[in-house]
Amino acid sequence: MRPSSSPSEALLRGLSGTPDVDAELGDHALLRALLDAEAALARAGAEVGLVPAPAADEIVRQCRVERYDPAALGEAAEAAGNPVVPLVRELTAAVAAPARPWVHHGATSQDVLDTALSLVAARAVEPLLRHLADAADAAARLARTHRDTLMTARTLGQQAAPTTFGLKAAGWLVGLVAARTRLAGARAGLPAQLGGAVGTLAAYGTAGPAMVDRFATQLGLAASPLPWHTRRQPLLDLAAALGGLLAATGKIALDVGLLAQTEVGEVAEGGAGRGGSSAMPHKRNPVDSVLVTAAARRGPGLVGTLFAAAGQEHERATGGWHAEWEPLLDLTHLAGGAAARTARMLAGLDVRPQRMRANLDATGGLLLAEAVAARLAPALGRAAAHDLVRRAAGRPDFRAALLAEADLRAHLSESDVDAALDPAGWLGSTGYLIDRALDLHRDATPGPAETAGPHPEAAQGLAAAVGPDGEVRP
Amino acid sequence: MRPSSSPSEALLRGLSGTPDVDAELGDHALLRALLDAEAALARAGAEVGLVPAPAADEIVRQCRVERYDPAALGEAAEAAGNPVVPLVRELTAAVAAPARPWVHHGATSQDVLDTALSLVAARAVEPLLRHLADAADAAARLARTHRDTLMTARTLGQQAAPTTFGLKAAGWLVGLVAARTRLAGARAGLPAQLGGAVGTLAAYGTAGPAMVDRFATQLGLAASPLPWHTRRQPLLDLAAALGGLLAATGKIALDVGLLAQTEVGEVAEGGAGRGGSSAMPHKRNPVDSVLVTAAARRGPGLVGTLFAAAGQEHERATGGWHAEWEPLLDLTHLAGGAAARTARMLAGLDVRPQRMRANLDATGGLLLAEAVAARLAPALGRAAAHDLVRRAAGRPDFRAALLAEADLRAHLSESDVDAALDPAGWLGSTGYLIDRALDLHRDATPGPAETAGPHPEAAQGLAAAVGPDGEVRP
Amino acid sequence: MRPSSSPSEALLRGLSGTPDVDAELGDHALLRALLDAEAALARAGAEVGLVPAPAADEIVRQCRVERYDPAALGEAAEAAGNPVVPLVRELTAAVAAPARPWVHHGATSQDVLDTALSLVAARAVEPLLRHLADAADAAARLARTHRDTLMTARTLGQQAAPTTFGLKAAGWLVGLVAARTRLAGARAGLPAQLGGAVGTLAAYGTAGPAMVDRFATQLGLAASPLPWHTRRQPLLDLAAALGGLLAATGKIALDVGLLAQTEVGEVAEGGAGRGGSSAMPHKRNPVDSVLVTAAARRGPGLVGTLFAAAGQEHERATGGWHAEWEPLLDLTHLAGGAAARTARMLAGLDVRPQRMRANLDATGGLLLAEAVAARLAPALGRAAAHDLVRRAAGRPDFRAALLAEADLRAHLSESDVDAALDPAGWLGSTGYLIDRALDLHRDATPGPAETAGPHPEAAQGLAAAVGPDGEVRP
Amino acid sequence: MRPSSSPSEALLRGLSGTPDVDAELGDHALLRALLDAEAALARAGAEVGLVPAPAADEIVRQCRVERYDPAALGEAAEAAGNPVVPLVRELTAAVAAPARPWVHHGATSQDVLDTALSLVAARAVEPLLRHLADAADAAARLARTHRDTLMTARTLGQQAAPTTFGLKAAGWLVGLVAARTRLAGARAGLPAQLGGAVGTLAAYGTAGPAMVDRFATQLGLAASPLPWHTRRQPLLDLAAALGGLLAATGKIALDVGLLAQTEVGEVAEGGAGRGGSSAMPHKRNPVDSVLVTAAARRGPGLVGTLFAAAGQEHERATGGWHAEWEPLLDLTHLAGGAAARTARMLAGLDVRPQRMRANLDATGGLLLAEAVAARLAPALGRAAAHDLVRRAAGRPDFRAALLAEADLRAHLSESDVDAALDPAGWLGSTGYLIDRALDLHRDATPGPAETAGPHPEAAQGLAAAVGPDGEVRP
Repeated sequence: MRPSSSPSEALLRGLSGTPDVDAELGDHALLRALLDAEAALARAGAEVGLVPAPAADEIVRQCRVERYDPAALGEAAEAAGNPVVPLVRELTAAVAAPARPWVHHGATSQDVLDTALSLVAARAVEPLLRHLADAADAAARLARTHRDTLMTARTLGQQAAPTTFGLKAAGWLVGLVAARTRLAGARAGLPAQLGGAVGTLAAYGTAGPAMVDRFATQLGLAASPLPWHTRRQPLLDLAAALGGLLAATGKIALDVGLLAQTEVGEVAEGGAGRGGSSAMPHKRNPVDSVLVTAAARRGPGLVGTLFAAAGQEHERATGGWHAEWEPLLDLTHLAGGAAARTARMLAGLDVRPQRMRANLDATGGLLLAEAVAARLAPALGRAAAHDLVRRAAGRPDFRAALLAEADLRAHLSESDVDAALDPAGWLGSTGYLIDRALDLHRDATPGPAETAGPHPEAAQGLAAAVGPDGEVRP
Repeated sequence: MRPSSSPSEALLRGLSGTPDVDAELGDHALLRALLDAEAALARAGAEVGLVPAPAADEIVRQCRVERYDPAALGEAAEAAGNPVVPLVRELTAAVAAPARPWVHHGATSQDVLDTALSLVAARAVEPLLRHLADAADAAARLARTHRDTLMTARTLGQQAAPTTFGLKAAGWLVGLVAARTRLAGARAGLPAQLGGAVGTLAAYGTAGPAMVDRFATQLGLAASPLPWHTRRQPLLDLAAALGGLLAATGKIALDVGLLAQTEVGEVAEGGAGRGGSSAMPHKRNPVDSVLVTAAARRGPGLVGTLFAAAGQEHERATGGWHAEWEPLLDLTHLAGGAAARTARMLAGLDVRPQRMRANLDATGGLLLAEAVAARLAPALGRAAAHDLVRRAAGRPDFRAALLAEADLRAHLSESDVDAALDPAGWLGSTGYLIDRALDLHRDATPGPAETAGPHPEAAQGLAAAVGPDGEVRP
Repeated sequence: MRPSSSPSEALLRGLSGTPDVDAELGDHALLRALLDAEAALARAGAEVGLVPAPAADEIVRQCRVERYDPAALGEAAEAAGNPVVPLVRELTAAVAAPARPWVHHGATSQDVLDTALSLVAARAVEPLLRHLADAADAAARLARTHRDTLMTARTLGQQAAPTTFGLKAAGWLVGLVAARTRLAGARAGLPAQLGGAVGTLAAYGTAGPAMVDRFATQLGLAASPLPWHTRRQPLLDLAAALGGLLAATGKIALDVGLLAQTEVGEVAEGGAGRGGSSAMPHKRNPVDSVLVTAAARRGPGLVGTLFAAAGQEHERATGGWHAEWEPLLDLTHLAGGAAARTARMLAGLDVRPQRMRANLDATGGLLLAEAVAARLAPALGRAAAHDLVRRAAGRPDFRAALLAEADLRAHLSESDVDAALDPAGWLGSTGYLIDRALDLHRDATPGPAETAGPHPEAAQGLAAAVGPDGEVRP
Repeated sequence: MRPSSSPSEALLRGLSGTPDVDAELGDHALLRALLDAEAALARAGAEVGLVPAPAADEIVRQCRVERYDPAALGEAAEAAGNPVVPLVRELTAAVAAPARPWVHHGATSQDVLDTALSLVAARAVEPLLRHLADAADAAARLARTHRDTLMTARTLGQQAAPTTFGLKAAGWLVGLVAARTRLAGARAGLPAQLGGAVGTLAAYGTAGPAMVDRFATQLGLAASPLPWHTRRQPLLDLAAALGGLLAATGKIALDVGLLAQTEVGEVAEGGAGRGGSSAMPHKRNPVDSVLVTAAARRGPGLVGTLFAAAGQEHERATGGWHAEWEPLLDLTHLAGGAAARTARMLAGLDVRPQRMRANLDATGGLLLAEAVAARLAPALGRAAAHDLVRRAAGRPDFRAALLAEADLRAHLSESDVDAALDPAGWLGSTGYLIDRALDLHRDATPGPAETAGPHPEAAQGLAAAVGPDGEVRP
């Protein structure tokens, strides 16, 4: 079989991904990561004294991505079952003869491909985290700006009670901060893979553990306590983090899409020239919301696939491993697109406080029914208060119906009723909760150095060593 | 956002797909299908008298795939949310002025993209069905050739009783025939989409129904009774059929992989130069089995995604639709790779009857325990026979232990016992079942014309009108 | 291990299921089906002359569900890995001694459990199809009643153009009819399972094929051409049909939930006393819509699980089979609840034509922009017409803005513009499409006998032999 | 609709779950948790001065599970869409009149049900962690005992090179430790839910934040920084942890099942009286392996469902929330069964070192091909060494073929060759890696108090604050 022709890459893929993340997921990036792994292996071998330094240097010299043709490697991969076999063959041919015995020394294909996929994921996570940070910053701005912008909260699709748009944005913000925390943790736990043919590091004699450490250090990846050829928890952590990101951004997109409905009209996506319709000249579609929603719909299937692929037998698996590669790249691709579009969508969001207020007022105070009942409950008992309010709520003019209730008038004046019907008076802890979300965001924002390298705890590759505040713990 | 850079297309995608199917799924194929849809729309319009014939001719003339740049269209698609909007813009610019009003006449983006995806799928199904037919033919040859090749059947991983390799291959065959039946049915049901902006065919006045019929006929697709913009059953039928194909081929690959285990050694994959290991010179890996298994692991997540995406609201959906495009292409891609590799794997399978016989004999007749118990049951009662046999099965030499049982010797001679211990005598309906599978395969094999066009029943787009024998019913 | 204590059966399960379907899925129903399978096996054995008639009669006599304790069987099942082993032990103990050798004659546990699950599914499908029929009837009534009830169609969450509520209901109807067709087909294909220990029917000598036929006939199930112990397409057909049903009902529930939003208000769920809120006295929640939506969200994961479980190796599988049981029952349970609630929701739907009209008019004719552009296109060219209309659409009063355009006034009078802005004049084929949906429904409605028994085509167990019209073909 | 009848609870559910975990997931446990939440709400209200102490005491008194009938509540739940509405009604009726206004004060149904599900999950995690600890202890014992038990490692189903059974068990152990770390972290992050009708805590005035803290503290749950009604990351953390547990135990079960194959025979499950077959008297099935494998197959679909359900709109969702309840309980149920069975399977595992050795030797030293090549590489160059060894590996007697190679004999003596062919000499870092796994296990084993309560970091509910060593960080 010849290598496959192109999928619908140019026409469709840009609609689910974003360029800077996708640039880390392509053939060039993967090939570079595979060669980085081979180079690091040679260097680590030289450091521990297994590989002659000149041989290592020569190998590193030939690990330049321009030297190799992804298409030819892909074609040759088909016979081997993975692209490392032909790459090692070509790399071996490329190096000067004395260095040849030291190419890919002591490693197995999976060592190099797993390491390369960790590298690719780690590199893709960098722009991804930037998009998430942008999205969180935009959500924080909305939360601050609209701290007091009244709107109706909606539960089960029904207007329910007052809230502020600031609190809604604060909820989005907390979701984005949590997604970022999870993703930074999963990235910190991404391990290099080095076990040799069957995970015993047999070819390194006693130098195995030192090789594993040097190899991981070279690449800025965590060192796993044991080879993880068929123990895939680090990938499950990444999958769950990416899936969580898609859920968090998908929730925001869902809200934006619903708020942007013609009949609701409380927000619109910004962006001139976006969202035109081929058939309807008057229409502006919430394109980012739609595309983020679409990406979020695809997350769970890929998360499930990676969990299903983790059932891997013996020392290296018959299919489970091979099933991970493309879904892992696809999931990262989708997360990238969702994060970037959420950032753009929130940064440009056209918020319409007047429409929010109009919608809030449209039911004539019904949304304050709980507030009225709460004022009445001490006097009438909760059940009686609830019944009285429900009765009034069934009449055309809620305020008038309330004032017509003798039991109410025995305890509340007209101005008491108006106070109860003022949405600004029934916001509870809204402001406090917004502040808390903003604090969390500020605390979770990493300094410049923080996403750069592997973390000591991550060196054991067992857990996402991330504190509740979003910081990767020192 | 600029269009995304390439994913790991060349390096990895060939390992999950196959070239001829993938050729129908790429940018070129999708762009061609989009243009085919626009051309068919113009032609249908001319046929029903809505579009001037010269305008239709001019539009058709400009619907040549070479004129358009997928990368530029993909880039422009990002603002619109789909690639049809910029394609229509470019096509309109390309045609002579008098034809411009008639480009994309009365259609919406989704009409053209859904139709194009139906076309793409229908075209990809052709080579896919050929691979499936090749796989089925190979399985049928194995079933015929090894009708009497004794081997052990295995249940829950344990040797259980005798069977023949022919029956095992017959089971594979029936799975492949069923997969083919399902896929041919789903293909026959793939409808063109034409509803206009909101599914009312408003722009066509009274000519809507005629437009729908002509449009579908032009393209060799089924005509849906109603627009299916947010009613996605035809895609669910296709998803289920492709998922079933992956399950059927995955089952075969699983069996081959297990039979090829070093300790079992009953089959090996053919193919010189395939399956070498980068670390272990002596090893030959069952590469096709591994890659088909990997593809099969990815099927359920994509099937689930397409079922999840089918929850689409109102007249056209906010994300559900967009979530279908790439998973549908990916699932077809995986099915193609699985079918082609299964065909190659079965055609080249190295079957080892001697090893099968050796494994069958390794337990010294224990696998015939049920046969012995069955001979004893009429005399001793089933429970006593079962107990006697179980007792003997616990001793080192089963045959000797049986012959040492007085209750047995009261009813069976030594040659009776030997007859009971002959695996060839405990095959039941094996031959009959193999014949039945071969008959099914023969009956299901379509004549040359049968996969070519849409079928009348399919014209209603409601059901996969396919008989149990694999023929699409006339 | 003792058997598990109860899950949250009483508190939660009623919210996802419906009583009559669930009654076919419980312990009692499964135990009855297991015993029906054992009884049918004895009867079939007697019919083909393998089992003495008195023994068969005695076995049938003891296959009474009241004799056996599901809890004790469940406890004993744990050691065997399935409940058939202890059931056969108890049944054997229950029958008179001469009949004992003939209990479970020639069968394996999976024969009986697979057959019982086919029976359970077939029995549960009966009330399920009734609920679907009720739902379809209700949708048909809505389609007829509201054939001319104008409302706005919505695409990507935006008001787009006029349609009628009748056409929306017709779309729902077609989805329900298709779901019914798929489910009836899958039910007709549900096969009995009989293969013996390893699928060779070894214990029946030459009588195997006759046994398989008689056994299936006894139970009203299809006879599979080969044992399907590890070839699970019939279950995948059922899973896909149930998943399609959940998608079709989920789409309706999604629409109803969105139409019932406070700001839209075009429908409300009926049902006095339903949907109250614990906190908000004024609120009425669209409970059925919510619960159907919830069920639909759970479908894809279960469909995916059943496709994943279908990767079953050798003659009987190590886990794949066991993974099917509960998901199959759960999926049927969810489909039952979704169908019943959809029927209730549609039958009681409170449709509000005035609100529909008000929403349609709220944008001052903008939804007719395409209609205006269509009227202008012949004169101005499509692009110029589109631009003119888009320009007018950006001004506060669309109609006035249109009339202020000189290019328009050159071709259209004020009454032409008003005609173009009349939604009733821009409905295209709406009426025709409604009729077509009603015709499909009428044609698909089965006569009383049609869902009762197995169908000849189904006897081969390979394909769902169902025509596009919902009838199982004779 | 009446409440649903029982599912196949007694017959099947014990095969996927385990009693002590399931006891925390049933109606009684959920009802108790719902009442615990209502009681904690009353107590918290009294502590912050919102609720009169006698009223709180009275409410607490009536929150006894025996007072309420789950079946009746389930039936009444159907009209409300959740069981909290009728429970609050009954609880209100049960308390003395003066306490009635304070029942469920300021809360919404979702506050109570989410909190109850967190409680239920937290309580179920306790026995689950015990089973995991037992499994890990058993794996550690195997790793220690079989540190030097030689066996063949297998990659892609082929014998590949020597390893020890101790290292295989060490890999299992590390997987179990990681699963435990994840699960303990997710449990520590399980938050109480308190937001009131729309997440503003409106009914508590300024006391909202204090209420949230007291409420969570009462229940031993984390306090979320903001209500998480539609921000479901804590459940995704739990889902991912449970899914990871199923993957880790599923991998072990897969290995055990493959090692127990008749042709491999290196381990067998212990447990007298388990695994008998209804048809084959001689057979013993690896029942625990099979059932754990089955549970693991069902994990990914449920994980995917919970990620899909997390797309929840506005302040409380239309279906997404309702879709979580049963899948969350089911996933916990499956994880319980898998952990308990893995513990039993490993504790009773019958390990057969002789058979391991025999399988290792069966290929006549071929597995040491890499070792031989490594010895030759310095002299011949890696490629030449590899070629020489591959040539020899293709002949019938590998050792003889090696000794017949002149190039080899120029550098290696016969005893050098024998040393290279000794599997004990090609184990690399096996011992070191086993020690490392045992260290990790020892470090990760919590002291008695550690799983008892909520952790301070968890109080923010944002992240799984768990170190790489499995300890929840102080």
